[in-house]
Amino acid sequence: MTLKVAVLGASGYAGGELIRLVDDHPVMEIAYLGAHSRAGSRLGDVHPHLGGGARRLEPIRSELADGTDIAFLGLPHGSSWETAHLLAEAGVAVFDLGSDYRMDTPERYEAAYGSPHPLPAELAAWLYGLPELFGDTLPGARRVAVPGCYPTSALLGLAPLLSAGVISGPIVVDSMSGVTGAGRGLRADLHYGAVDESVRAYGITTHRHRPEIEMGLEAVISVPEAVQFTPHLVPMQRGILSTCSATLTAMGAIEPVLREAYDRTAFVDVIDVPPQTRWVVGSNRALIHAAEDGPTGRAIVTVAIDNLGKGAAGQAIQCANLALGLPEASGLTAVGWLP
Amino acid sequence: MTLKVAVLGASGYAGGELIRLVDDHPVMEIAYLGAHSRAGSRLGDVHPHLGGGARRLEPIRSELADGTDIAFLGLPHGSSWETAHLLAEAGVAVFDLGSDYRMDTPERYEAAYGSPHPLPAELAAWLYGLPELFGDTLPGARRVAVPGCYPTSALLGLAPLLSAGVISGPIVVDSMSGVTGAGRGLRADLHYGAVDESVRAYGITTHRHRPEIEMGLEAVISVPEAVQFTPHLVPMQRGILSTCSATLTAMGAIEPVLREAYDRTAFVDVIDVPPQTRWVVGSNRALIHAAEDGPTGRAIVTVAIDNLGKGAAGQAIQCANLALGLPEASGLTAVGWLP
Amino acid sequence: MTLKVAVLGASGYAGGELIRLVDDHPVMEIAYLGAHSRAGSRLGDVHPHLGGGARRLEPIRSELADGTDIAFLGLPHGSSWETAHLLAEAGVAVFDLGSDYRMDTPERYEAAYGSPHPLPAELAAWLYGLPELFGDTLPGARRVAVPGCYPTSALLGLAPLLSAGVISGPIVVDSMSGVTGAGRGLRADLHYGAVDESVRAYGITTHRHRPEIEMGLEAVISVPEAVQFTPHLVPMQRGILSTCSATLTAMGAIEPVLREAYDRTAFVDVIDVPPQTRWVVGSNRALIHAAEDGPTGRAIVTVAIDNLGKGAAGQAIQCANLALGLPEASGLTAVGWLP
Amino acid sequence: MTLKVAVLGASGYAGGELIRLVDDHPVMEIAYLGAHSRAGSRLGDVHPHLGGGARRLEPIRSELADGTDIAFLGLPHGSSWETAHLLAEAGVAVFDLGSDYRMDTPERYEAAYGSPHPLPAELAAWLYGLPELFGDTLPGARRVAVPGCYPTSALLGLAPLLSAGVISGPIVVDSMSGVTGAGRGLRADLHYGAVDESVRAYGITTHRHRPEIEMGLEAVISVPEAVQFTPHLVPMQRGILSTCSATLTAMGAIEPVLREAYDRTAFVDVIDVPPQTRWVVGSNRALIHAAEDGPTGRAIVTVAIDNLGKGAAGQAIQCANLALGLPEASGLTAVGWLP
Repeated sequence: MTLKVAVLGASGYAGGELIRLVDDHPVMEIAYLGAHSRAGSRLGDVHPHLGGGARRLEPIRSELADGTDIAFLGLPHGSSWETAHLLAEAGVAVFDLGSDYRMDTPERYEAAYGSPHPLPAELAAWLYGLPELFGDTLPGARRVAVPGCYPTSALLGLAPLLSAGVISGPIVVDSMSGVTGAGRGLRADLHYGAVDESVRAYGITTHRHRPEIEMGLEAVISVPEAVQFTPHLVPMQRGILSTCSATLTAMGAIEPVLREAYDRTAFVDVIDVPPQTRWVVGSNRALIHAAEDGPTGRAIVTVAIDNLGKGAAGQAIQCANLALGLPEASGLTAVGWLP
Repeated sequence: MTLKVAVLGASGYAGGELIRLVDDHPVMEIAYLGAHSRAGSRLGDVHPHLGGGARRLEPIRSELADGTDIAFLGLPHGSSWETAHLLAEAGVAVFDLGSDYRMDTPERYEAAYGSPHPLPAELAAWLYGLPELFGDTLPGARRVAVPGCYPTSALLGLAPLLSAGVISGPIVVDSMSGVTGAGRGLRADLHYGAVDESVRAYGITTHRHRPEIEMGLEAVISVPEAVQFTPHLVPMQRGILSTCSATLTAMGAIEPVLREAYDRTAFVDVIDVPPQTRWVVGSNRALIHAAEDGPTGRAIVTVAIDNLGKGAAGQAIQCANLALGLPEASGLTAVGWLP
Repeated sequence: MTLKVAVLGASGYAGGELIRLVDDHPVMEIAYLGAHSRAGSRLGDVHPHLGGGARRLEPIRSELADGTDIAFLGLPHGSSWETAHLLAEAGVAVFDLGSDYRMDTPERYEAAYGSPHPLPAELAAWLYGLPELFGDTLPGARRVAVPGCYPTSALLGLAPLLSAGVISGPIVVDSMSGVTGAGRGLRADLHYGAVDESVRAYGITTHRHRPEIEMGLEAVISVPEAVQFTPHLVPMQRGILSTCSATLTAMGAIEPVLREAYDRTAFVDVIDVPPQTRWVVGSNRALIHAAEDGPTGRAIVTVAIDNLGKGAAGQAIQCANLALGLPEASGLTAVGWLP
Repeated sequence: MTLKVAVLGASGYAGGELIRLVDDHPVMEIAYLGAHSRAGSRLGDVHPHLGGGARRLEPIRSELADGTDIAFLGLPHGSSWETAHLLAEAGVAVFDLGSDYRMDTPERYEAAYGSPHPLPAELAAWLYGLPELFGDTLPGARRVAVPGCYPTSALLGLAPLLSAGVISGPIVVDSMSGVTGAGRGLRADLHYGAVDESVRAYGITTHRHRPEIEMGLEAVISVPEAVQFTPHLVPMQRGILSTCSATLTAMGAIEPVLREAYDRTAFVDVIDVPPQTRWVVGSNRALIHAAEDGPTGRAIVTVAIDNLGKGAAGQAIQCANLALGLPEASGLTAVGWLP
């Protein structure tokens, strides 16, 4: 069996990782690479690390995806809804790494992003593809919104604890991300000279991943839970560390709950030391460490993922494996690149 | 007037900064450079950036400080108490950048560091040298414990708000520091290969700067306040960003309170955008940004300082200026190095 | 005495350094900050590290410089010739950090940059401002072309040796620069993600600093000498290391020649160990190390400077000091920022 | 078929990469992990990125390798000769990543390393394992000295040109390496604070890879050729760029010669733009760019490899594949990690 794959948004960081992973996947095969501004370019010029070859990026047009089994979309916010919809209607299994279909209701979408969804009736048809938390829904799915990188890290750390009732608010998530999380586009604040040797918070109170985290937690506990979320830009390429805290409702419970939650998962490990992001960069792994602070009665849970791996391309492949009945770990690795 | 200065611990990062600042100070002059393992070395070999010259590091012996007016001590925890005491008894104005005299009571010292203080009766004689918060006590002082880098950043952001009653717990401080904060000693976890391209939390719940932050806040509000403090190591040389949060007790109050608190200070600025650490590296400046989060009812205050400037050597000079009746900003700058 | 200074190109990296240095200069004072695209901006928004204040950037118009004594121009190649000429004609002492007036003849300009000079008759009126090599010409000068960063490093290392006849070609210069050397403009190849964790050569055989190096050497030995020059981009902010090599014509001579050449200079030191760029970043210092390789009979001279210091703003101030009869080191430092 | 593999020196950077590659190899399987100081440790503690598992590092004792088919040795200089010899005598196919058996004669060994070889008669039995240049000798080999990282890059760029007679001396090689090339041991000059934001040359005229480069070139042209070699440390983890230059003996010949030389190789590509190290990090690929400089009549060849890939572990696997009759690219990739 070979599954033909379209990667749309092939020129971005997530697109490059998707190509790398699909090329390495035992049953998937690239059939169509689509890009906007870099359409017409040789893959080797856009992603020199992927090597040469005759492959070229083509324009993004849904009809070019005819005959593909799977489409991965790595497009900017607001750019994927139409193509994703057309492909799904045409029977392609669509895994959208963007945010267009992540919210579960039109109301939440509008509250999160500030404008109405262009196809509000479609939102309910899309699943939120975080396998370790909502994986039961994925077999057979053909419309999957792959979670954002920050929400993946925060939800993996907090959802089991909130679900088990061992923590309560106020919930504080301070996350630190490498620069690839901001994409490959030219921006003054992503110039080497503006990032190197510095750390800064951004999007304080307003980052669009915050309502996504809140939605994910609500999906688990069925009541709204506000989350204080502050992302930070750190001078490195890849990796996210989320330091999540909440009030403990019981002592001694959080590590057992987390270990139980992830005991049978392929990619999430609860470990005894605070994780470094570099241990997971290049892999689909998430590392979680839990601590309890007596004086404040707070839980401190740190979660490390690769923002382009478990936070994007790796998770998309994992969702596709589950949706299409393949082994969950096909084409994925839990081994990172650097000590 | 010339004030003769001893810098003890001259081979470390803070020591190097002290030498640089004293050399540039209008009325201070280096009279004695003391070091442990590097005693006997040429300054130019220990700190090549400071240039050549015939100056040599000598051993650390209190009698070698005879005739000096001021001593700055940049020694590891537990290493300064005896020398600091002897020098102060001999009439030298002592500014200890270490933690030996920061705690106000023997009980708090033991709780913080796990062993009894060797000279418990002396603790009360030492002032905690954070000029913007406790500067009134400094004129005439001859025994000053200069605050730690993390506590300086957290206290500058939180103390005025807590004092004004506009925030309450739970207080969460997630700080990110460059590597020089960990000192110049050889450690496997400070090898370039262990730091570069990675971020990690460390000292979760146990870092010794946490009781120092709690003491500083208690000094302001007269009741104990527990603080959840998590430091992170970020791949950069210098700079600390502390993201501090607390529950708001009123809306719209925190920025005015902070602006009022620092309106007449030379080195603390409340600004409209979240600060980058790089804007303050090389200076004695602290930059503070305040935000209020409606859904969680929380204050988010980010503070950027140079861990070796306002967080160490700069603050020590500032304390000495005030203690000795010099203009507060003598020999210090609010101008950083990098855009 | 106060000298009024215009800084044109105030929004760039060199512009920011010029402002920092002039603000710190004992007799210079900023009177006019000019910029193109950022005209109208507050200085504190363009260079947050320089602190607040009411200063604003104005447009670049030569009449706005009326009444200034000195103008420093930090503009892109091809952008300074007209303004520089008008200001010089108006009696302002002009120090152009750009390349428009560096070449000594119209022929060399055209060969170097590929198009004729717009004011060819003016070229002869401009001096090449490298004080340690050509400083005798600077007193009284009002038209000074400040050398490029790479040529400064290469010429300091090679010119005295070639002049003394102790080396001969083939001359090979492999230079490594931090990213600020490429300026602050948005470019895909200067995105953090394109620079971090990588090194690359660029401008092989074609970099426009190569004819400038060749001109500088020819000025010293009066015959043309071709130089193989290859610049490299290294993941750091500031600093240039040039590794220069040439065939030895005598053994044991190069270090004495270099020590003799720089014995009485304020900012150039010949040292016993290969210099690190970080030792000079933030200063106007150049560090030089010389080695002789027996088996190949080659000299290997490594030179470290700060590309924004001795390679740009610092050298411009040094030239202005000499031109205007001030002490050469006024407002400059030989002390760097980092061990 | 499964080949049992011993990795000795498993705790180092090269050791970690060997484990990663062997774990991914279709027919190789780790049977024994040996280490000195970290013997007894869990693999997951020594190389957290490799994931958990029950594997432990054992002491390095040749008898523990009984029953293994292949041994990879990643030990410091001077530490592998005895173990390598014992294992080879016992019939194990040994691939020594260290320098103990790289020199072809006792005289050259002593000249290169300053002391006599402990088993001089054995040197002739070891092959120098650079497959693209000397691969014909590898099938059936059981004693292979894997080249150093710098020599691999320099020889790939220079050997075909020298062999074809299109270049001649003086040959200049200026190489820039990431920090992992210096190993994982604690050293003051590898502290993050000593490496970050700086570049420096080291081992000028004396680096022990220089005689290895000269030996490799002599093997190709049968006459000695002195090489001026200067390595530089660059603030990044992995990757080597070697900028190699030599006098052209003909114009227009070097790129065709290089393309012809590597046309049929799996891992060496001649490309049209100067390579970045990051394009090859994580892969076994070498990228080569060639330029001719008219004015100096010099060839400038830049070569990028991953010092831990093609410069160490990847090349060792490639040698083992060839020696043992496996497909040359088994378990290896030409795809890197970062754009």
